[in-house]
Amino acid sequence: MNQSALARSWVEHANSHGDFPLQNLPLGIFSRKDQAPRCGVAIGDAILDLEAVLAAGLFDGQARAAVEATRGGALNAFFALGRTARVALRERLLELLGEHSEHQAALKPLLYPASECQLHLPARIGDYTDFYVGIEHAKNVGKLFRPDNPLLPNYKYVPIGYHGRASTIRPSGTDVRRPKGQTLPAGQNEPSFGPCARLDYELELGIWIGQGNDMGDSIPVAEAAEHIAGFCLLNDWSARDIQAWEYQPLGPFLSKSFISTISPWVVTAEALEPFRCAQPARPEGDPQPLSYLLDKRDQANGAFDIELEVLLLTERMREQNLPAHRLTLSNTLSMYWTVAQMVAHHSVNGCQLQSGDLFGSGTLSGAQPGQFGSLLEITQGGKEPVELASGEVRKFLEDGDEIILRARCKRDGVASIGFGECRGKILPAR
Amino acid sequence: MNQSALARSWVEHANSHGDFPLQNLPLGIFSRKDQAPRCGVAIGDAILDLEAVLAAGLFDGQARAAVEATRGGALNAFFALGRTARVALRERLLELLGEHSEHQAALKPLLYPASECQLHLPARIGDYTDFYVGIEHAKNVGKLFRPDNPLLPNYKYVPIGYHGRASTIRPSGTDVRRPKGQTLPAGQNEPSFGPCARLDYELELGIWIGQGNDMGDSIPVAEAAEHIAGFCLLNDWSARDIQAWEYQPLGPFLSKSFISTISPWVVTAEALEPFRCAQPARPEGDPQPLSYLLDKRDQANGAFDIELEVLLLTERMREQNLPAHRLTLSNTLSMYWTVAQMVAHHSVNGCQLQSGDLFGSGTLSGAQPGQFGSLLEITQGGKEPVELASGEVRKFLEDGDEIILRARCKRDGVASIGFGECRGKILPAR
Repeated sequence: MNQSALARSWVEHANSHGDFPLQNLPLGIFSRKDQAPRCGVAIGDAILDLEAVLAAGLFDGQARAAVEATRGGALNAFFALGRTARVALRERLLELLGEHSEHQAALKPLLYPASECQLHLPARIGDYTDFYVGIEHAKNVGKLFRPDNPLLPNYKYVPIGYHGRASTIRPSGTDVRRPKGQTLPAGQNEPSFGPCARLDYELELGIWIGQGNDMGDSIPVAEAAEHIAGFCLLNDWSARDIQAWEYQPLGPFLSKSFISTISPWVVTAEALEPFRCAQPARPEGDPQPLSYLLDKRDQANGAFDIELEVLLLTERMREQNLPAHRLTLSNTLSMYWTVAQMVAHHSVNGCQLQSGDLFGSGTLSGAQPGQFGSLLEITQGGKEPVELASGEVRKFLEDGDEIILRARCKRDGVASIGFGECRGKILPAR
Repeated sequence: MNQSALARSWVEHANSHGDFPLQNLPLGIFSRKDQAPRCGVAIGDAILDLEAVLAAGLFDGQARAAVEATRGGALNAFFALGRTARVALRERLLELLGEHSEHQAALKPLLYPASECQLHLPARIGDYTDFYVGIEHAKNVGKLFRPDNPLLPNYKYVPIGYHGRASTIRPSGTDVRRPKGQTLPAGQNEPSFGPCARLDYELELGIWIGQGNDMGDSIPVAEAAEHIAGFCLLNDWSARDIQAWEYQPLGPFLSKSFISTISPWVVTAEALEPFRCAQPARPEGDPQPLSYLLDKRDQANGAFDIELEVLLLTERMREQNLPAHRLTLSNTLSMYWTVAQMVAHHSVNGCQLQSGDLFGSGTLSGAQPGQFGSLLEITQGGKEPVELASGEVRKFLEDGDEIILRARCKRDGVASIGFGECRGKILPAR
């Protein structure tokens, strides 16, 4: 690939250790004032308007076809083109935005400060599936209910997942209205109705499906990585009190469906290539995956080393100009199943996946305090409040609180890349 | 309303006690050979091409706007127009298709034999939610696991539901490929992978959402009926062995997502108006619904009296020209919650509903043998096989078996209407 691991861009800000150096080139849908949403690529603190670059005649062949497929304000058709077109576009963008580009003068007017742009959902999401592959989260939550036997018997065989609500997925920056619902207050026999009192975040990796499959077909695990277009961050906001009362026997429903927030940039599989690694070894005694989930190359190279972070900023902290409080520092290495295994499992029954479908990984916690990806785990179900520099404490989220997810990939000798923010602020219930 | 309960149509077949008399007028998306899908209305054994009637200048005002909104081969925009436009179209169709119509000569060439048409999904389904409001089904299934206490504590407070898979909903007539997946064979400690051995049907009412709501808003129960565009039949095919192993802790997933089949005609709320009735009285001791689920008019008139039927036809029965075997005869009166309560509950947390979303009622069983809406209940989990006239027995569905759902509304002094068929045949696993 025509990409030096440390190559620089003529967009100066891209060379200064932000999320979006030349090596990242995430795609998204953005708009400026009174302009229709269109595809752009993030470079440093700017966004390059790809439709305008297309109009300027700077794309040819497959790269041109790739950008043409982004028209209409959604990346579904582009995702459906698959890897070859995506790589062709990336190669061309590396040339255009690299420090030796011949086209700087033509491109500069097509580059807008990101701060002046609005970011939208990158695709029309047909179906959204939330998995549960963060094994430390599953253990931490399981311990609250079953201290001696936190994991259910199926966990190490089945990449557990469930269908989520697609209509309420929103891009970073969308406010989060505190939901109302039924809860069973402790010690009561009858439920009450009112605003959620145990509002929580969940730190997840989001996975965008590229090429889909026909109903009745399955995607073999060895081919599954080819069906993934890219990645984002996902905050699977959760109303713990509503969840506890509603979820038997069919799973979480209104406790999750009020909103889910994603980071709007699609970090491509190619940008993450240097940060792939072997699937962490299963502990002694864990079963081998069944054959439809087992592929040597996936085991050798199907995991990702991505550092994940959650920050909390309360209203008082903003007033006092205090820095955000770090709630979580964890890593995608806590995924018990790879994204290829998730795709293979999801389609093994013939379920049709479509380009623009979104998967969530499930909450990605570590095993140690400081690494827990939700307040449920951090406060042990509300028993151990978090103390903040503002003098406040938090068992769960309060109105005015803002949660910010970030992600960062680092490796020696390779430019570090990030995901951009996934941010949301709690508004009072209506 | 300009509708006599026994008025007749000049389309003679419509007057002969089929599913589609003049009083029904269900809408759907159909195509003839090499023709783009378009909106039609079922009348007797024929389909009237509404786009062609529009082109002939026979619609005005709101009826015209209604038909214009059906263009593009999906009814979403029409559903979003709401009740007024739907009623205007119905009124005009009652004139055009009534026995005293002045337009018979103009309309006859725009009427096609249904047998020559293909029916499609009537709308692009954004999100699909499956409820669990059939209380006898919940009891029957609960008894298999908890004989003394079949209903969970939340059942009589919460209209239980969960998110389903939208991408694999298909119209009647689509073959059903037996899914493969993980199961835990009885007596084993480790799962196996292979074709589902306990394939089942579930008899459900489908509900089409008309006008939606913005994220963060809720639809009050008193207004909820206005947000429903129409109804269909739904077969929620279920792989019981896959379901038993996968569903803890987040609910059914691959055991349901391989396909769900719906009847393609949208039976409107107006056509069902004569078959509304009071919500069946809650048994002594059952709690009152919480206030956000409680509306006097809904309690007085929010239920439906619709007879539901399931038929089985095996390959051998087809060879021997035997009639289909009736597995189930039940009724929508077994719904513990009304469709208005389902809409109010779904949106109470601010979840956005959109026109073209589909709800399933959950399996609608009665309390008595002969009324059970799934083989799981009929055979007591595979213990008591069904005997067929062909000499065969069935614990669960076998390859070549065909399941046919039907529905019928009857009331003295009113024309009886039906839903058309919801049919699917099992193909062997790949």
